[in-house]
Amino acid sequence: MGDLLWPGDERAGDLASDDAFLAAMVRVEQAWLDALHGAGVAPTSTDLLGLVGLADADALASAAEAGGNPVIPLVRTMRERLSERGDEQAARWLHRGLTSQDVVDTGLVLALGDAADAVLDEMAAQARALLGLVERHRASAMTARTLTQHAVPTTFGLLAATWLTGVLDAADDLRRVRSALPIAFGGAGGTMSAATTLVRDAAVGARPVHAPPADRAALELVARCARALGLAVPTAPWHVVRSPLTRLGDALVTCSDAWGHIASDVLALGRPEIGEVAEPAADGKGGSSTMPNKRNPVLSVLIRRAAIAAPPLASTLHTAATLAVDQRSDGAWHAEWGTARTLARRALVAASHTTELLAGLEVDPRRMRERLEGVGAEVTAERRSMAALVGNAPAADSPDLILPDDLGAADAIVDVVLARARTSLEITG
Amino acid sequence: MGDLLWPGDERAGDLASDDAFLAAMVRVEQAWLDALHGAGVAPTSTDLLGLVGLADADALASAAEAGGNPVIPLVRTMRERLSERGDEQAARWLHRGLTSQDVVDTGLVLALGDAADAVLDEMAAQARALLGLVERHRASAMTARTLTQHAVPTTFGLLAATWLTGVLDAADDLRRVRSALPIAFGGAGGTMSAATTLVRDAAVGARPVHAPPADRAALELVARCARALGLAVPTAPWHVVRSPLTRLGDALVTCSDAWGHIASDVLALGRPEIGEVAEPAADGKGGSSTMPNKRNPVLSVLIRRAAIAAPPLASTLHTAATLAVDQRSDGAWHAEWGTARTLARRALVAASHTTELLAGLEVDPRRMRERLEGVGAEVTAERRSMAALVGNAPAADSPDLILPDDLGAADAIVDVVLARARTSLEITG
Amino acid sequence: MGDLLWPGDERAGDLASDDAFLAAMVRVEQAWLDALHGAGVAPTSTDLLGLVGLADADALASAAEAGGNPVIPLVRTMRERLSERGDEQAARWLHRGLTSQDVVDTGLVLALGDAADAVLDEMAAQARALLGLVERHRASAMTARTLTQHAVPTTFGLLAATWLTGVLDAADDLRRVRSALPIAFGGAGGTMSAATTLVRDAAVGARPVHAPPADRAALELVARCARALGLAVPTAPWHVVRSPLTRLGDALVTCSDAWGHIASDVLALGRPEIGEVAEPAADGKGGSSTMPNKRNPVLSVLIRRAAIAAPPLASTLHTAATLAVDQRSDGAWHAEWGTARTLARRALVAASHTTELLAGLEVDPRRMRERLEGVGAEVTAERRSMAALVGNAPAADSPDLILPDDLGAADAIVDVVLARARTSLEITG
Amino acid sequence: MGDLLWPGDERAGDLASDDAFLAAMVRVEQAWLDALHGAGVAPTSTDLLGLVGLADADALASAAEAGGNPVIPLVRTMRERLSERGDEQAARWLHRGLTSQDVVDTGLVLALGDAADAVLDEMAAQARALLGLVERHRASAMTARTLTQHAVPTTFGLLAATWLTGVLDAADDLRRVRSALPIAFGGAGGTMSAATTLVRDAAVGARPVHAPPADRAALELVARCARALGLAVPTAPWHVVRSPLTRLGDALVTCSDAWGHIASDVLALGRPEIGEVAEPAADGKGGSSTMPNKRNPVLSVLIRRAAIAAPPLASTLHTAATLAVDQRSDGAWHAEWGTARTLARRALVAASHTTELLAGLEVDPRRMRERLEGVGAEVTAERRSMAALVGNAPAADSPDLILPDDLGAADAIVDVVLARARTSLEITG
Repeated sequence: MGDLLWPGDERAGDLASDDAFLAAMVRVEQAWLDALHGAGVAPTSTDLLGLVGLADADALASAAEAGGNPVIPLVRTMRERLSERGDEQAARWLHRGLTSQDVVDTGLVLALGDAADAVLDEMAAQARALLGLVERHRASAMTARTLTQHAVPTTFGLLAATWLTGVLDAADDLRRVRSALPIAFGGAGGTMSAATTLVRDAAVGARPVHAPPADRAALELVARCARALGLAVPTAPWHVVRSPLTRLGDALVTCSDAWGHIASDVLALGRPEIGEVAEPAADGKGGSSTMPNKRNPVLSVLIRRAAIAAPPLASTLHTAATLAVDQRSDGAWHAEWGTARTLARRALVAASHTTELLAGLEVDPRRMRERLEGVGAEVTAERRSMAALVGNAPAADSPDLILPDDLGAADAIVDVVLARARTSLEITG
Repeated sequence: MGDLLWPGDERAGDLASDDAFLAAMVRVEQAWLDALHGAGVAPTSTDLLGLVGLADADALASAAEAGGNPVIPLVRTMRERLSERGDEQAARWLHRGLTSQDVVDTGLVLALGDAADAVLDEMAAQARALLGLVERHRASAMTARTLTQHAVPTTFGLLAATWLTGVLDAADDLRRVRSALPIAFGGAGGTMSAATTLVRDAAVGARPVHAPPADRAALELVARCARALGLAVPTAPWHVVRSPLTRLGDALVTCSDAWGHIASDVLALGRPEIGEVAEPAADGKGGSSTMPNKRNPVLSVLIRRAAIAAPPLASTLHTAATLAVDQRSDGAWHAEWGTARTLARRALVAASHTTELLAGLEVDPRRMRERLEGVGAEVTAERRSMAALVGNAPAADSPDLILPDDLGAADAIVDVVLARARTSLEITG
Repeated sequence: MGDLLWPGDERAGDLASDDAFLAAMVRVEQAWLDALHGAGVAPTSTDLLGLVGLADADALASAAEAGGNPVIPLVRTMRERLSERGDEQAARWLHRGLTSQDVVDTGLVLALGDAADAVLDEMAAQARALLGLVERHRASAMTARTLTQHAVPTTFGLLAATWLTGVLDAADDLRRVRSALPIAFGGAGGTMSAATTLVRDAAVGARPVHAPPADRAALELVARCARALGLAVPTAPWHVVRSPLTRLGDALVTCSDAWGHIASDVLALGRPEIGEVAEPAADGKGGSSTMPNKRNPVLSVLIRRAAIAAPPLASTLHTAATLAVDQRSDGAWHAEWGTARTLARRALVAASHTTELLAGLEVDPRRMRERLEGVGAEVTAERRSMAALVGNAPAADSPDLILPDDLGAADAIVDVVLARARTSLEITG
Repeated sequence: MGDLLWPGDERAGDLASDDAFLAAMVRVEQAWLDALHGAGVAPTSTDLLGLVGLADADALASAAEAGGNPVIPLVRTMRERLSERGDEQAARWLHRGLTSQDVVDTGLVLALGDAADAVLDEMAAQARALLGLVERHRASAMTARTLTQHAVPTTFGLLAATWLTGVLDAADDLRRVRSALPIAFGGAGGTMSAATTLVRDAAVGARPVHAPPADRAALELVARCARALGLAVPTAPWHVVRSPLTRLGDALVTCSDAWGHIASDVLALGRPEIGEVAEPAADGKGGSSTMPNKRNPVLSVLIRRAAIAAPPLASTLHTAATLAVDQRSDGAWHAEWGTARTLARRALVAASHTTELLAGLEVDPRRMRERLEGVGAEVTAERRSMAALVGNAPAADSPDLILPDDLGAADAIVDVVLARARTSLEITG
């Protein structure tokens, strides 16, 4: 892999790649064929593993254009190879009862679900790293800044707790959406007509008396298949109700919002004139092609890059969702695939960058305190203003001194966030 | 109100208007002053109702520019008027412990929450209308279309069930997000320093022995205030963690996706050459300035309009979220207000249009069936293909006849959707 | 006017407001009626000024919903009032030959064109302010920063020249697009059928022998009308070819890109730790509701706000353009109006903010130089690296001293930009 | 190549690929080294062709992460290989005077420019195909539809002329932008400091008396290099003024708007109930995985897909442009690369699809006329309404008959569009 125009892309490995998507579509066909066989509808099943692979991806991609999606050539190729190895029955029954969209959508959801799992793993690592930063720096006083200007004292622990809150919020969303990712089914028009016919015809003279009617049996086939694939069973086919994808897109962008926020702060606080935090140092990291001594905050830059580019991609998924029409959309559906994949791969890369950034973040509490004390009267103005309000004598006031009281409820808030983070990390392992 | 460039805008009434936002900000100041007084911190509270009103909106809006937000002139005006009516103590204590962002964000959330409630009411009405359509038309066979071309038979009941699924999915999202809308707090830098100071100073010699420390007491003030406003208490200040707003934006767009999808179908099926559904007829509805006999599907057109324009607005909320920096963002925060408001108002209008559309939708089951039978062999090709697969004789086959079996599991799926809808409507009243 | 959620909105005045749009639509009807009369088609014209006004806006907005656009109630109201004042002929002939879309689109283009002119005026003022900054600071050495870190020396004059380039590029685009804004015509289906019929029928027995045929005469009517309105004549009706609007949207966003860029730099360089520039000081500007001494860079913050929110609006215009269908789009058209208006009003506000920011920008060349010298060896590393390359002795090198040579071609580039700016300002007055 | 999730991707060939971008960056280094040598600054140049190639892409992509862009490892690799082949002087001088951003941006612009050229070729082919359709069908009467409903008569020739106008508008934009694509220069901080130093130092004792000063000579180097690369020379470095890229993005989206519009119409008019146009038939085209007889409008579907996904990508370029800061942006710059490339590749694919669609579009004028006459009185209502206005007797009127006069100025408009298209095609060959 690797992408010259998206440095870091290789961190996503094979996840959400053409290869992963191809493998996922084969998993769908396998699960369905097994379900057909298990329910006594198809006379046989067979192991589809290895039938097609990365070597076929280019040919399948090219052949996909004629029908507008890769399933037609995929099924044709798989049937030919099954026939070649003498598996005529499997060749005959492969894909029966499904439509292309069932396979593309379920395959997409499987591939994206794997990517989401990897993102969630990174987020757990981020939460752990942040938890450590919060604990270590709950007493590290620093200057809060609003609208770029000095405001009042805060602590770096509270700032990190704020980042942590963003990560936990986003992980909550992604976890919920990921665990509800549904199997796609419906057949040619959303009625499961082919599958129902197959169940009905297969049952002639063979089904037990108390067997459910064919339509319910067809829905049971779907449920069986979903279980095999680790997916949820939706109340209805979602061929033209795209909330599963828009929700996933929204959750991934919410993650990237959290990472971008962290990167923005690291970039601001890491400006040489501020210098309160710095990216982890590493050989060759952050170099310049012409200025030998430079050490650029490359991780934050690349995270911010991803954060800037992500929201419009999720927006495209919504536009596609709302342009849904008929029983299969005439372009809106096709616009989702590459968009969702790009969103997922970039999320993986940014997640990994963020974990690395947080794990090695250099914090300079001394510089933070020096600045805070240097700023002096300005950041303690609010204190005097409050004292005047309640009629306290400002006599004992030392404008240049930061008092523990100036940190307000920072510590108490940190406690609440830490408790949430610990609970969250326990639940998710 | 009314907006020449967004016909239908007046359906949103005052919700999410300048007026509503202004009133919401006053509610925030009231709740906070009451909480301060209730906790023994402020010596008094007072009724702020009527202190400022719509007549002040223009002046406040103009004055908002100098500080970048409307709270500074709002508080100044309110203090002046409290002083004028002799309420010096209230004038002194008003807004103490808060920062502008607390008031803007909580006010925004209150105003948007009211709008979300109204949207949810419309969605319940939509669900009821759809439930009726599904029940009436579960046996109305029609042609499923994929990629604009005839596919297999389905029922209008199943199509309406698909729309209903979209509406229920979106309502689930919006309800969850709305019920978790959090109060904004944090004070000047996210530490609640002013509030903590006030609590501490007020307590000197007066607080009971077992009273919580000042910082926890300050957080209790927030919780009290949140209860009074019907808002949730977040784990941490969200001044720079904008998930509450992005989630609301995403949920509103998910609603608009569902409505746009319905409108797209009504527009396609309502083309005169298809004519399977029609918008509710009404005097003067859908007229033309030059063609007297025309009856345009105006509701669907206006719904689709809103659906096209919505996703980029939610995307802007995400971009703003990820550009969060410091303890108050330098522009990203300000970009949210008008964006969220526009999203909410337009959602209200589109929600109302969709309810009206669904409540009066004219469905022509006879034309649906005639077309289906006219299409004939084409839509039953799949049936023969499946029969051949299982070795059934195609002898008895009548290509032009639509058999009940051709509808597959349509009815069984409809049952599942109806059950979900009924449960959902029971819960939400 | 005024908008509590978009501080500064009143700077846009009436431009691109409901009122402006309403007046523009009346101008279109006037120009068309005059053209009909001037060509001997309509028996009369009349002064439409004052026939409808701001007081009618709400009623028209509400009535717009039934037909989906405001022209139907507008024409009805105008006809009623013409009849009331005894102008039956004008009432009869008003709007004949036009369709709603002709009036909405031409009205929109007129209102947006006025807004664009005002934006261009601001940009000329910005260019003058920047020209002054460039000239004053062409020798003010400062530290260039890349990826937030110190890089090599540059001058503030060159930085301002860079901003100026962005402003000139954007103004070039906006000027070109604005001057090509076309009249919308086409009638009910893009064929000018009604107008052609009117010309033909009016001509019976009356038209001179060498008069052009009716269809060309109808197109001449359009051209006459366009001249009266100061608009271009397009090669074909653009009812479903929306490039005039997308181009305007793109140009406005390009302007906002230039302003956002300036604001980003002012915000970064104005951080207290850097302090190389500052916003113009003004009483009450940049205050805080709780921190009395604070001086926030409010102009830059509000400019950046607009810059963040603008691109997705222009994107919506493109989405609407590409969803064009039939001879009038079923929602895509309607999505443009409010979007284009918001884009234009916000551009006006941001333009005004930027002019004010640049006119009063405080630059601190001493602090710039001190930092540059403080950074020392780091920013001159490149110089030594080049010296080593050509084999020059580094002996005479003083790492901490910034030499004129270190500024490279900054001054020469500044000359090129100044020349371009002067030419541009001469042309545009 | 090939992309399972973006069927048709292989139509873009190598254009705007990693390979193309890599080759373009090498071209930049070559042109610069040649220019340095040609100006007597570098002692030598050498042929860089073949020094790195596709086989290096993965390694370079991975190595790009450390510095945040691919130029650092690219230059290192090229220097190593030059050294290996004994070309020490070239190894020493390679890239001297440039910064990474110069190479990435110029490389990007070269690769995108090549893609734009290929798009323009397709658009010329589209214009020719459309010109043919317009000429053949200028008399083919059909029903105009507005808001999905029947309106008045028009001709298919005029509809095709409308499509053609969209294509010509977009091609005009793309051609203008492409021909102005500028070389990127500026060096480490936008001052050309390294290049200026090199020129100055190289000149010691060697430059002729009347040679320009070093800074102007450095700018001449840039101009020489631009000429070699076929690029324009901008007034100033555009490292943080991103209009060249946003303009290209906007132009590409404008193209895709035009194609999407055509696809929308073909999809609507190609619905089986309407059936007035059809996609070109081809073996295996438009098949279904489960419904053997289906013929789907695959080209239009894939074009529409691209049109839906494009606008947000161009929007991202604007967001990146406006977030520009310092002398190199901290993430906004990096967000552009993959975004611009995706936009360009997809434009190439959609361009090719549109050419194929238009070249083989099947038009059914008989069906058009039959429908028009079937609709009858409805589409001629406007005619009677106009006749009544001018007092013509409606006696001779036959509501069901479409008269030539009903087509208004369709033919005259067609003439104007044809003239524009012919001129445009002559100019562009």
